[in-house]
Amino acid sequence: MALSNPFYTPEVQGAYELHSLGEFRLEEGGVIPDLQLAVATHGTLNAAKDNAICIPTWFSGTQQTWELVYIGPGRALDPEKYFIVVVNQIGNGLSTAPHNADGPNSAIAMSKFPKVRIGDDVRAQEQLLREKFGIERLHAVVGGSMGAQQVWEWAVRFPEKVARAAPIAGTARNTPHDFLFTQTLLDVITDDPGWNGGEYASNADVARGLERHADLWAVMGLSTEFWKTEFWRNVELPDVTWDDEIEFKDRFIRAVFSAMDPNSLLVQGWKWQRGDVSRHTGGDLAAALGRVTAKTFVMPIDEDMFFPVRDARAEQELTPNSELRVLHSIAGHFGLFGFEQTYLKEVDDHLTELLTSPV
Amino acid sequence: MALSNPFYTPEVQGAYELHSLGEFRLEEGGVIPDLQLAVATHGTLNAAKDNAICIPTWFSGTQQTWELVYIGPGRALDPEKYFIVVVNQIGNGLSTAPHNADGPNSAIAMSKFPKVRIGDDVRAQEQLLREKFGIERLHAVVGGSMGAQQVWEWAVRFPEKVARAAPIAGTARNTPHDFLFTQTLLDVITDDPGWNGGEYASNADVARGLERHADLWAVMGLSTEFWKTEFWRNVELPDVTWDDEIEFKDRFIRAVFSAMDPNSLLVQGWKWQRGDVSRHTGGDLAAALGRVTAKTFVMPIDEDMFFPVRDARAEQELTPNSELRVLHSIAGHFGLFGFEQTYLKEVDDHLTELLTSPV
Repeated sequence: MALSNPFYTPEVQGAYELHSLGEFRLEEGGVIPDLQLAVATHGTLNAAKDNAICIPTWFSGTQQTWELVYIGPGRALDPEKYFIVVVNQIGNGLSTAPHNADGPNSAIAMSKFPKVRIGDDVRAQEQLLREKFGIERLHAVVGGSMGAQQVWEWAVRFPEKVARAAPIAGTARNTPHDFLFTQTLLDVITDDPGWNGGEYASNADVARGLERHADLWAVMGLSTEFWKTEFWRNVELPDVTWDDEIEFKDRFIRAVFSAMDPNSLLVQGWKWQRGDVSRHTGGDLAAALGRVTAKTFVMPIDEDMFFPVRDARAEQELTPNSELRVLHSIAGHFGLFGFEQTYLKEVDDHLTELLTSPV
Repeated sequence: MALSNPFYTPEVQGAYELHSLGEFRLEEGGVIPDLQLAVATHGTLNAAKDNAICIPTWFSGTQQTWELVYIGPGRALDPEKYFIVVVNQIGNGLSTAPHNADGPNSAIAMSKFPKVRIGDDVRAQEQLLREKFGIERLHAVVGGSMGAQQVWEWAVRFPEKVARAAPIAGTARNTPHDFLFTQTLLDVITDDPGWNGGEYASNADVARGLERHADLWAVMGLSTEFWKTEFWRNVELPDVTWDDEIEFKDRFIRAVFSAMDPNSLLVQGWKWQRGDVSRHTGGDLAAALGRVTAKTFVMPIDEDMFFPVRDARAEQELTPNSELRVLHSIAGHFGLFGFEQTYLKEVDDHLTELLTSPV
């Protein structure tokens, strides 16, 4: 029996279609009886089927942010030129996730949901694009944060299928610091007695844990300078205001995360912690990145506190045919949400150059 | 009735003396009936009483780290030249704190402990130095982190009493980001049901909260590069080993913080959040720092994730007769513990220059 949660509906998240991949075997050994991927497309696939761009989603995100912030006529991700397929990652709550697992997926509902890997997402996306749309090779794969993990996985696992790659604010192999940070995000959820081993009746039962989760994002997701300069005064929502940083944290960051499903966050967090393309090469990251043939722009955000530029640079330097393009955002990792026009122009300029580059 | 906790004993922390200041009125309105400051001195006060250096302690720390890491013959903080007075901050568990409040302090034991400000510590230290040792003017005040907050408070509140000041890895006015980070440290303690509103029978009752507290330090106290380069392999303890970063976190960082008293951490954390020299000038930081007459070396650590260099620089630029001296440590804020000889040499070189400068 699926939990009712309005956050994971088209009314809140915008339109998407569900595509069933049927039974899907996971790298960790589990099985999703009927994997449903929530997909939103923009633009038209051309006759040659060579203008497709795949965008996987980030932790806790959905396809909606991409539509609102990055995709549009005249933008780099232009639906008048490209067929853009945004695929919600497995477990994110629009695609199959613990709280929406019903019908044939009832056996994996809630606490019984299996472990999912970044590689599972990318295999599912490849299957979807091939079976549903007949796409054999992507014009590009673009993604931020956990989406960047999936971009890297695409480029290493299916090099012949990826012409261009843009991992934004994310790494090919997750770092030890990131693992520890993510663990704190997960622990505050599972420490909440209301989580009840994953068998809660409503995400509201885990309200305290979700608030603590949000509070950690307030510390790590933005930047010291975001808070010091009171940049939050520029962040506007309809019908909500804040006069100080605590109010902003509570009414914006806590509000956003409190709407989410705890088990969904746990599935995604576990996956994030273990993103690692070197699983394909016995732990040899240089060998894994050496497989990449895509033209790749590696795009970290300068103020990112947990995917710092130097970690991105180290991976970029191991990647053939790649360039480092540093983005600037006072919002740190959450710069991904596009609070600044300057950031968006940078992203668009880099992506336009990448997407129009001959390969 | 004081709680027994071996962490707060001379056997673990090294020798110190308790000095009573009697009844001590706090800036927030509370009263400590008999304030005991735990003090360790090194060297000899000269006849002119002008060779004294005061060192206040940092969050969760005691005088011991200063003795083991920074003070010694031939070092900048040389007991053969200076009379060095290390004063444990109020609430730290050696000085009067919630869990050791007995006898006349019984009325403020545990959950009844009053709010303490950085200004209270500095007033108490000034009183101690004057009444106990007859010291009217300090050769220098040196401190790290919350100790640096106290250094700044000394320099602004008692400018005529401070000839030289060295705030290391700490700010004069706490930043909004720091406030939020510290709040997460406190919340994981108070969220533990074993904390019981501050009325636990043993710090072991709050074991989970103390572990979570330690886990947050693992993320913010060190640096992304510390973890990535596996610098922890260089950190050695007798009779304990670790083969991976999780083991290091659990056996080192968790072990250290789990020995501590939860209420003591809460008192110190509340104080840290509100450190602000501009309380003396109606919120005008420039005016407050403009009062400083001490020769001041502002010494942030380059990899510090929550007292970043730019925050220190902004304050240094407002401080007359000051210089910015950036320290380098892959251990970030915990570089303060002196894991690297290169860091210690930098500190010693800067401090030697400061302490021998004419004023």
